[in-house]
Amino acid sequence: MNIAVLLFDDFETLDVYGPVEVFGRLVDLYTIKFYSLNGGQIKNRHGVSVLTEKMEDVSDNLEIFIVPGGLGTRKEIENKLLIDKIKEIATVSKFVLTVCTGSALLARTGLLDNKTATSNKRAFAWVITNGINVNWNKKARWTIDDKYYTSSGVSAGIDMALGFISDRHGIEFARRIAFEIEYNWTEDKDNDTFKIE
Amino acid sequence: MNIAVLLFDDFETLDVYGPVEVFGRLVDLYTIKFYSLNGGQIKNRHGVSVLTEKMEDVSDNLEIFIVPGGLGTRKEIENKLLIDKIKEIATVSKFVLTVCTGSALLARTGLLDNKTATSNKRAFAWVITNGINVNWNKKARWTIDDKYYTSSGVSAGIDMALGFISDRHGIEFARRIAFEIEYNWTEDKDNDTFKIE
Repeated sequence: MNIAVLLFDDFETLDVYGPVEVFGRLVDLYTIKFYSLNGGQIKNRHGVSVLTEKMEDVSDNLEIFIVPGGLGTRKEIENKLLIDKIKEIATVSKFVLTVCTGSALLARTGLLDNKTATSNKRAFAWVITNGINVNWNKKARWTIDDKYYTSSGVSAGIDMALGFISDRHGIEFARRIAFEIEYNWTEDKDNDTFKIE
Repeated sequence: MNIAVLLFDDFETLDVYGPVEVFGRLVDLYTIKFYSLNGGQIKNRHGVSVLTEKMEDVSDNLEIFIVPGGLGTRKEIENKLLIDKIKEIATVSKFVLTVCTGSALLARTGLLDNKTATSNKRAFAWVITNGINVNWNKKARWTIDDKYYTSSGVSAGIDMALGFISDRHGIEFARRIAFEIEYNWTEDKDNDTFKIE
């Protein structure tokens, strides 16, 4: 399965590299590439810099589209070209996975309307303004609705990626990955330690 | 504080970006740069590629040196030039933090002799052959001895980085970071879920 990871300036480091660690280990099953609206070098304030390809070069038969969050979403939410391109790729992709405030970007496309989704619980008040027709879930570690997986904040992306692996390859397979990376996986997607009332 | 992160081909993604997420958030306190023996583009099989500076360009008054693990350590453990350079930088650095099998590379320098250290519990049998005079701890999530912090496998690097922050800035400060990244922090360094008997 081909995975396209969206990047934009000031993406959150672990939103990206948590899922990349999980999927990346399965080299025989998943191939990961990084994209941004115009391609080229994308940076964040953690000192991380990544060379990306253009979003228009994402293949039409993409299997997994990952949309991270981070401070950069506050600016990108107003970037109509980016939102349109996210909508285009998310529409053709077999699955779409968002981490943290990445769900705000996806919500802006309208594709989450009348679907259940979650986001970083610390940024929830802002996130929900970007999708007033979305069924926002304040308690979930991650949610699944149709082809859309959305996770809570930052490290929850690891839990969701393991959950996605579990849904495709079985829970024992996912547990083995968690064991190998010595990660205390939150297996229950519906009860986030960081939930809000 | 300046942080130098060592990279080599086939480093483990999360070994690097877990601690980078934790330290990277504190932009006013920590500056992160990436280095490899000869500089240039470093890749791993997760599809991650990073442009690095040369290790010889690491400043003499470095505060934190991070050594990750990963499959690449199996090859690099025999790279005498790299081990010598790790020893040189670790000697001048104020603190040295290893993640996963990164402790095998550091052990090879001799700097961990008669000190307590840990590593990935799945790779323990191999790791200890690289430091027969090290007091290897099979139960710790991470260890601290003198200026050396060593963590267990992959995601344990996040716990150790939060522990380091706690030691410098107080536990409430570290808990706040864990809260912000919605990470279920293992605060007790001495009891790893993945310990071996």
